[in-house]
Amino acid sequence: MLKFYYSTQTAATAARIALEEAAISYEGIEISWRRNLNVEKLAAVNPLGQVPVVQADFGVLTQVHAIIEYAADHGGERGLLPAAGTPARDQARAWLSFIASDFQKGFLPIAFAERWTQNTEAQNEIRRAAKEGVDKHLAYINQALAGKSFVLGNDYSLVDAYLFVILGWCKWSGVGLSAHANIAPYLRRVYERPAVQKVLKDEDLLDFFPA
Amino acid sequence: MLKFYYSTQTAATAARIALEEAAISYEGIEISWRRNLNVEKLAAVNPLGQVPVVQADFGVLTQVHAIIEYAADHGGERGLLPAAGTPARDQARAWLSFIASDFQKGFLPIAFAERWTQNTEAQNEIRRAAKEGVDKHLAYINQALAGKSFVLGNDYSLVDAYLFVILGWCKWSGVGLSAHANIAPYLRRVYERPAVQKVLKDEDLLDFFPA
Repeated sequence: MLKFYYSTQTAATAARIALEEAAISYEGIEISWRRNLNVEKLAAVNPLGQVPVVQADFGVLTQVHAIIEYAADHGGERGLLPAAGTPARDQARAWLSFIASDFQKGFLPIAFAERWTQNTEAQNEIRRAAKEGVDKHLAYINQALAGKSFVLGNDYSLVDAYLFVILGWCKWSGVGLSAHANIAPYLRRVYERPAVQKVLKDEDLLDFFPA
Repeated sequence: MLKFYYSTQTAATAARIALEEAAISYEGIEISWRRNLNVEKLAAVNPLGQVPVVQADFGVLTQVHAIIEYAADHGGERGLLPAAGTPARDQARAWLSFIASDFQKGFLPIAFAERWTQNTEAQNEIRRAAKEGVDKHLAYINQALAGKSFVLGNDYSLVDAYLFVILGWCKWSGVGLSAHANIAPYLRRVYERPAVQKVLKDEDLLDFFPA
């Protein structure tokens, strides 16, 4: 059975939702750096020490984006992403890359400002600048959701699973969503997916995410 | 003909190399924020105001990662990435996502520290921390290159085009490569590709990159 290395309150939640949506069985291996839980196991499969990681007979696969496309391509006829080889898949890929490389990374200075500088005033400046950056991304996402149930159109896709998880980080990071009216009802639609509910319950994250 | 919006000294260079390797014809539209060159044209196709952007009959495609897979899938039998639908393509995608979301973004604090805080001492702390982060990524890349000509094995792929461009940023950002002995000969191999030479010459970047 596939092994899935994850840590709660990270982007690994999105990859886990993808495996659940695709009905791919896995053994979950939780990593906690704070509790020193399975950290050496993780280092043995990923020298970068990052989650999520999928370990299977084909080898080791890292990166949320790559695991999401893997799940979609091995999830049977569930339509979790537009069909491979179509312009619609290219657009889904552009969204996955935007979420991974721009949107998600925009939260890092909020979480890690104190790792970068000891100066508390500078930490506050960094967090303020980062929140402004996240807010610009929210405006872009809000515009993309206008008149649609999900980000690619009227059908749910794994792009929504990833977008939901990172949008959820607005809660702990104190970035307001109310100026972007399409986002709250969108989050509720994704939150209610059975696979999303299952993962959030398993990881005690129901209150971690806005819904 | 496909339109390609780019700006020099950005990651768009990697997308442009991908189009050249795939022999996909394009009209280049240069963007310069400093010279206010075509900035409004870019805003009309990408509300995020980011490059690169491909505009074609199928619509608008953003994100280096997405454009690279598009180029590979429309480049005929050139083998620019492992075949779609194979575990090897999944691994290539993990690399593309690592480069886009981890490696490339690690340079941002070096380039933009002064946008985040006015405190020059804090700016120096931020840059120092970011350089340490980039160096960890270099160690990972160096290890991955051991005993191989290119990052996926003995054949060049578009993963190398992207990795080359971002590794090249070590030059302006003052991150040393000499502790990672596999990287310099690797950069020379990619630098010598005719498509790479063409793009670097077109954009007057031959001295911008280490080779």
